[in-house]
Amino acid sequence: MYRIIKTVPRCIFGKGSLDQLDEILKPFRSGPDNGIVFMADDYFRDKPLSGRIPAGKHDMLLWINVDDEPKTSVVDNLRDRILSESGFVPAAVVGIGGGSIMDYAKAVSVMITNSGSSVLYQGLNLAKNPAVFHIGIPTLSGTGAEVSMTAVLTGPEKKLGIKGEFTPFDLVVLDPELIRDAPANQRFYTGMDAYIHNVESLCGTSRNCMSDSYAHQSQVLCREAFLGTGLSREEADEKLMIASWFGGLSIGFSEVGVCHALSYGLSYVLGYHHGIANCIAFNQLEDVYGKDTDDFHRMIEIHKIDIPHNISKGFTDNQLLHMAEVSIKLDHMWKHAYGPEWRNVVSIDKIVGWFRKM
Amino acid sequence: MYRIIKTVPRCIFGKGSLDQLDEILKPFRSGPDNGIVFMADDYFRDKPLSGRIPAGKHDMLLWINVDDEPKTSVVDNLRDRILSESGFVPAAVVGIGGGSIMDYAKAVSVMITNSGSSVLYQGLNLAKNPAVFHIGIPTLSGTGAEVSMTAVLTGPEKKLGIKGEFTPFDLVVLDPELIRDAPANQRFYTGMDAYIHNVESLCGTSRNCMSDSYAHQSQVLCREAFLGTGLSREEADEKLMIASWFGGLSIGFSEVGVCHALSYGLSYVLGYHHGIANCIAFNQLEDVYGKDTDDFHRMIEIHKIDIPHNISKGFTDNQLLHMAEVSIKLDHMWKHAYGPEWRNVVSIDKIVGWFRKM
Repeated sequence: MYRIIKTVPRCIFGKGSLDQLDEILKPFRSGPDNGIVFMADDYFRDKPLSGRIPAGKHDMLLWINVDDEPKTSVVDNLRDRILSESGFVPAAVVGIGGGSIMDYAKAVSVMITNSGSSVLYQGLNLAKNPAVFHIGIPTLSGTGAEVSMTAVLTGPEKKLGIKGEFTPFDLVVLDPELIRDAPANQRFYTGMDAYIHNVESLCGTSRNCMSDSYAHQSQVLCREAFLGTGLSREEADEKLMIASWFGGLSIGFSEVGVCHALSYGLSYVLGYHHGIANCIAFNQLEDVYGKDTDDFHRMIEIHKIDIPHNISKGFTDNQLLHMAEVSIKLDHMWKHAYGPEWRNVVSIDKIVGWFRKM
Repeated sequence: MYRIIKTVPRCIFGKGSLDQLDEILKPFRSGPDNGIVFMADDYFRDKPLSGRIPAGKHDMLLWINVDDEPKTSVVDNLRDRILSESGFVPAAVVGIGGGSIMDYAKAVSVMITNSGSSVLYQGLNLAKNPAVFHIGIPTLSGTGAEVSMTAVLTGPEKKLGIKGEFTPFDLVVLDPELIRDAPANQRFYTGMDAYIHNVESLCGTSRNCMSDSYAHQSQVLCREAFLGTGLSREEADEKLMIASWFGGLSIGFSEVGVCHALSYGLSYVLGYHHGIANCIAFNQLEDVYGKDTDDFHRMIEIHKIDIPHNISKGFTDNQLLHMAEVSIKLDHMWKHAYGPEWRNVVSIDKIVGWFRKM
């Protein structure tokens, strides 16, 4: 049995395409009560971007703090706030920000039309009702969250996405100008998510000609963006934006692997953001990814990026065990990496060993 | 202003995935009257594939002849027949065949819910009502019709597609086994549509990082499929199927150019099928496409394919002029190839000159 892969059905790509947002939203403003909910990273609250969000008087503009990884509790609160303050189901939800905002916008759009806590929907195809029309506008590139069918959430018991038919955005606006001013470290950590997606997608049992094709081209673009010479920042940004899109699509048709499984453990127990957690893990995974880690190390060097290392000195035994337990539960990732008999290869001890190298 | 590109939102890819069709259709069979319309190439009528089409007693199985290119008159007849014979709007339309069947299935799905002749809808975003849910199952790869937002039709006045939000399939089943038994010439002519899409997409003013990325990877796959050594037929088929998908997506974000404009003229006036018409034209376009025609010539040689040449000897002056007139009307293709001032470069005489070389 092959899975039906749901992807984003509408896309606008181009420098300055954000300016078309007001026009895009017109059909959603037909009724008197049809408000739009904008969810934007509060990093932009005092930045010029805030003035470009076309929020009208019937709309709701929510500034979201993403110091922490997206949480089920925050999703539930946002949903309740939207429904109680506006008094009606919004005509559309627009997310503007990095991967965390993409995840929040997707999750809230699903939860507006599905009752109960978002904790109940962490898993595959658990939502029963179609989501509110939702639009993604990424301001960081790499996570692929703008194109994926998962809204990754950390809940009281697990870090796992709301994944399914209704999760992907209905429309994504890809405006490479929006990622221009990202801080260098942030840009790198997030960009490496795409690079790592491709490596993991290509390196496991779920791979196929579709996922390989996306991963190969995304890898070409990542290498141009991070190892290329003679590229303008503008050119590199465009390539990075498409690398993220293709990387996300590759994972959609394949699966993530060892690095993401370890990274989820780091994030869950120690609160590291996804991008940096991936980098911390990938940095020490030569035994799994071979020469792909060499390219990664060259990218770090060229871009003078600080990847935290020797952090395991500060881990308590309890933390280590907890991280490994979170990690080993991600059955689908290990299965992709090592096949259905992955438990013959991967144990809590082996995972603890990987964490100790970080 | 950038365009919103509508793409196919659901895809299943994998050898044997056709066997899941019955399961996929289950949700569409909920009501007593909810029949499915299957539209299949009549080439398969006495082939094993016919036994794998899960048509039930409430369904309609239409065998379609595609000796001629898809026509508006045939679309209108099919639509009328479906509505009068079944007495209700079908729950879904499933197209099984090559590019012509893909175009018929897309066009009929739109026309079931939009009144009048399909001639009225040849153009961009002219249909007002959403189409019936439609599923595409390609049995030839290259045209990209399975993923494009156009159903190309020849009408009494022009060859032009029904293009828009409602045209693309809602779901596509990509089963590489289905293209395995295609006749060698047919496989080649159709496959070259993808190769030519990529060359044209990369060679014009509408190109961008998204369309380039799809075209580059599609070109890698085309070269592997048609120039690669050591590939099994099964591997080549998979690559060709994804090359078609990526090529179609590239064109979606960019545009076709000189070769397609000439090919449309050939098809309209002389009735050549799209794939072979493209090959006849591309074969003589060294002055436009340079070294990309060299690779094309190598592919012809390796696969021992007959591309008709010296056919212009048989053209009457009237035919030549008519072809050139059909061609020059394709403003969007010429604009892509030579920019907004294309009329300074391209004239009826120049086009006639190209046709005379064929």
